[in-house]
This record gives sequence, C-alpha cells and structure tokens, in this order.
Amino acid sequence: MTDRPSDRLPVAVDAMGGDDAPASIVEGARIAVEQFGVPVVLVGRPDELGDTGTIPVIAASEVVAMDAEPAASVRKLKDSSVVRGAEAVRDGVASSFLSAGNTGAAMAASLLRMGRIKGVSRPAIAVPFPVLGSTDTTLLDCGANADCQPEWLLQFAKMGTVYTRTRSGIEMPRVGVMTIGEEAGKGNALVKATCELFEQTDWAAECGATFVGNVEGRDLMTGVADVIVCDGFTGNIILKSLEGGIGGALEAIKAALRSTPEMAATADIVDPVLTPLFDALDPDQRGSAMLLGTRGVSMIAHGSSTSSAIANAIRTADEMVEAGIVANVRAAFAAD
Amino acid sequence: MTDRPSDRLPVAVDAMGGDDAPASIVEGARIAVEQFGVPVVLVGRPDELGDTGTIPVIAASEVVAMDAEPAASVRKLKDSSVVRGAEAVRDGVASSFLSAGNTGAAMAASLLRMGRIKGVSRPAIAVPFPVLGSTDTTLLDCGANADCQPEWLLQFAKMGTVYTRTRSGIEMPRVGVMTIGEEAGKGNALVKATCELFEQTDWAAECGATFVGNVEGRDLMTGVADVIVCDGFTGNIILKSLEGGIGGALEAIKAALRSTPEMAATADIVDPVLTPLFDALDPDQRGSAMLLGTRGVSMIAHGSSTSSAIANAIRTADEMVEAGIVANVRAAFAAD
Repeated sequence: MTDRPSDRLPVAVDAMGGDDAPASIVEGARIAVEQFGVPVVLVGRPDELGDTGTIPVIAASEVVAMDAEPAASVRKLKDSSVVRGAEAVRDGVASSFLSAGNTGAAMAASLLRMGRIKGVSRPAIAVPFPVLGSTDTTLLDCGANADCQPEWLLQFAKMGTVYTRTRSGIEMPRVGVMTIGEEAGKGNALVKATCELFEQTDWAAECGATFVGNVEGRDLMTGVADVIVCDGFTGNIILKSLEGGIGGALEAIKAALRSTPEMAATADIVDPVLTPLFDALDPDQRGSAMLLGTRGVSMIAHGSSTSSAIANAIRTADEMVEAGIVANVRAAFAAD
Repeated sequence: MTDRPSDRLPVAVDAMGGDDAPASIVEGARIAVEQFGVPVVLVGRPDELGDTGTIPVIAASEVVAMDAEPAASVRKLKDSSVVRGAEAVRDGVASSFLSAGNTGAAMAASLLRMGRIKGVSRPAIAVPFPVLGSTDTTLLDCGANADCQPEWLLQFAKMGTVYTRTRSGIEMPRVGVMTIGEEAGKGNALVKATCELFEQTDWAAECGATFVGNVEGRDLMTGVADVIVCDGFTGNIILKSLEGGIGGALEAIKAALRSTPEMAATADIVDPVLTPLFDALDPDQRGSAMLLGTRGVSMIAHGSSTSSAIANAIRTADEMVEAGIVANVRAAFAAD
C-alpha cells in the first residue's frame, strides 16, 4: 500500500482487450488494488467480467477486435471499451487509461478523445528496454508513426527527455538517434536530415538533455543512452524483433533446463539465480509502453500480458499521473 | 576433408580486417585448410602475418581502418587488403573473398572490382538468422543500402530466393516483407509501394518462390519465412539489435551460471545441454553474411569473429562457390 491520498482518481482499464481478456485483466486490476493500493475502474461489458469485487465498472457494450482496423473501429464503435476508457480520462472520471487490446485502436481513441498537447505534431509510443544493472533505455517511436519527418523526431527527443526525467529521475537524460553507424552522417535520408536539424537548434539545452549523437541497434540494451529516437516503423520492428529473439531464446533455455532428469534436479540451485535474470531480460514481460503527447496518460500493455504484468502497468500509469507527466510534457512544449 | 577436387581456387581472406586481425584470421585460415580441406590465400602485409604455414599470401601493403570512410578508402588505398582480395576474385586467382574488416570497404571493393550482375540495381547483404529446430531465415538487405526503392526490394526477394535455394536446398522458398503489422497494407510508404509492386508482377512464380506477404519482427526467428526483405537501414538495425540483445542476454546467463560455487558445481550437468543451444542462438557467432548481386562471391564476417567463426565463413564461401551462387543469381536476372 502507498501513502498516496485515497481520493485520487482511478486508472481506467480496458477489461475487454488482451489475449486472455477479460479474466487476466480483471485479475490484474484486483492485484493493483489490493497489493499496490492503486484505485482502478474497469471498462467493458459488465456481464462478461465476472466478480469484480469492490472494483467499479464503466459499462461499454462494444469491443474492438485485436485485428480490427483501428481508426475506422474507433469512429464506428463509439460505445467500445477503448473509446469509453479514453473518454473517462477526458471527462475527469479517471486519471489515466490502460489497454492491452488493439494497440492502434487504443492509440486512436486516446488521441481523438484526450486530444494532443499543443506543439506536439504526432504522439509517439515510448517503450523502456531493460539494461542489466542500470536504468532502462527508452526507445520512441515504437509504432505510432510509420513514416516520420525530422521535426517529429526532434519532438520525440524532447518528449523522451521529459518522460525519462519524470519516470527515472535522471536530470539530464542522454539522447541518441538510432542509425546504422556511429559516425556522424551515417544513416538513411531521415536520420541525416534529423541530425542536421538537431544541430541547428538548441533543443537539448532547452529541455535539459545531453545529445550523444548516433547510436546503433547493439547499443539499445547496453545503457549508452537513456533515450533513443527513431521513426515508428523502425522502432516497432526493433521492439518486435527483440521480443521474438530474446523471448524465444529464453523459452528455449528454460525448456533445456528441464529437458533431462539431471537438469531438472539442478532446479533448486539454478532457478533462484536465473529466474530473476530471465524476468529482467524479457522485454515481453515488462509491457508498459506509454503514448506520449496526448493530454492524458495512455498506457499500452502487450496483448499477451499476464495479470501481474497488467497490475504493474496499472501501477506505472498511476505513478506517471502522480509524477505529472502530462504537465511536464506540456511545459516542455510551451515555449514552442 | 571433403571430396572436392584439390585443384579448385582458394578463398581469398583479408588477413588485416577484424578486431583480432591478423592473428585470429590466420588461425581461422589454418583451421579451414587443415580441418575442412578448403584452400585459402591470405591477403595482407606478409611481415605482419607471422607463420602462415603452407598458406600462400597475396601481398597488400595498405589497410583500411575499421572506422574509415569506405568509398574514399577503397578509391585511395589501391594496395589495401580489401581491394587486392576483391581483385584476386576478379582476376580468377581466387574463388571468393572474405573480410572481417570494415564492412563498407569490403562491400565497396567487391562491387567496384568484381562488378554488378546485369539486372541487379544494388547488391544487398544477406544474413541468415538461426531458427531453432529448422533452417535459417535469411534477412536482406542488412546494410548495403540505407534508402531503397521498391524495385530494389523486388530484386532482393529474387536474390534471397536464389540464395536460399542454393544454400539450403529449399526448392520453393517462402518470401515475406518485413513490416509492422501482418495485415496487407500495413507499413511505411516503402513497404506499401513494394507490396503493390509485388502484386503487379509474377516475380514469385518466375523465380520459384512462395510469397507469404507481410511478416513482423517477431517472425524473424520463428521460421514463418525462409527469406525476408527490407531496406538496408531496417535490416542493419534488426541485425545489430538482435546481436546486442541476444548476445547480451546469453552473456548474462553464462555469467550467472558461474556466479556462485553452487551454480558452478552444476556445470558438468548444465553445460553440455546449454552450450550447443547458446551457440545455435547467438547470431553474433554465425557471421557469414554474403553480398549478393556482385559477379563474384563476397562474404562479410563480423569484426569480432573468432578463428572458428572465420573458418566457418571460409567454408561457407567455398560451398557457395561450389554451389554456383553467382551463376544462379545471374540466371534469375537473365530474363529481365
């Protein structure tokens, strides 16, 4: 339990989105309420949620399917859980919104219902990647904008700086640009134009960042930067490649550790050391991507999130609200 | 030892390129000759190579530094090991060229000295990714062309098809396009234009491929496609991200397995099962990227390649020559 005031607004949680929804979502909400003391309101079809205990429900009769076309779904399904959840934030009924459902729909609903922060051209998805023995490195955009302009990457750099300072307390985050060679001038046309733009402005000094220049894919999980910017096509492919690659590697190793009776017999010694490491390494299990640039906190969890991943994401949403992330981003763009 | 004729041409190996060059390169060449029966000629500064035993040396007095600007270096350093190595293939003195040095310089030297296959607009780097329990999935382009046109991706698909058939014996390789959503129409502007182009032509039937459409980053190491095409910016970032992410994860796990006396005591049981798995999973250790589209076999090894990785890359170069990869690519483009 936390010391925070008990009258604070609840996190609105899309009960209908996710591979094991609504069961895993309702269970995650219960954990967040009981173990973390975070108030929650579930959004979905009341008669499908089972026993939600003391957790209130905002009724929403429609569901956006995981593979539905996002923008059209949000336009059409006005009584869907993603639309109602985003509206709860807009209307001051909830502090923030979390969905493990259709990512595009959650993004579109958040953007349309909460609105954009003034000065932000395009919201971006920020995803923290684990760095062993250090704070996370945040990559953005991880999929909101497939094709980007240099000006947007500059805005991502600013939003990422504010996010990292707010989330991790790093006063002067180190910001890099993802590209394919460490030397200046290496990259595709977008990166080259972005680096030129970065040099023409005082953005880093203005928002309290240290610009570290070009970084490569291998730098993502080694802690050379706190924030790395890229277009949403590149970011999403990095995210999915690492989820698949590291997730697959860990699963194969876990299976091998049980593959013979002799291996299984080592479990008492091996598991206590390896399990926390596996958890720390698996980007798939961390699942607290955040949409930055909207006038309300919108968190995006992985479709395969377990109830404990959902509970952690709810806690993160609550923490980001308490830390004033929206006001902080707004302040960074106020001068623009 | 193989049954191949002993009069076949040697693989020209850049002795000066690589983090531990020339020592690890010379040692790798020795392994390739003695254990795999592959003839090798080393290229570099004779007085820096130490004892090369029976392995002949092509003298080259200059070295392109790992971080030098590729095109300018190749233009200027005409007696460098990468230029002389590529020339050995052009001149019929060597069957193929392998370098673990400056990738851009090895590429530029191969392209300039060997020339392009007619019909190929841009050579591309093909990298096989491990799929546990199955054949590799080949990703291209992994870095030769940062900005691409749809027509080039179509050519990459054809070259990847020929490469996979030649290397793995798969008659009808499954070819996908790397993007950020499985549904048709998902992706950035390049992917959308590429998919339209793919639908307008009979390329798959003509070159004996099965087009499987869009694939995502998480599909790279799960075997849903044999060949995946993307622009070189995206491909290089995927490659480096997975090298860093999986490599880092494996290192951390290896360290944990030795972190306490109790853990170390399990080594006799755990190592025989996990070590082969670690080797199979680590993209960093496989290191046999191939430049496709040049009129000669050009292989690119990782800068950090061990001598055994170099030996494997030499064997792969020899196998690709024997399998007729250049003639096969040429035939696929002959109709264009």
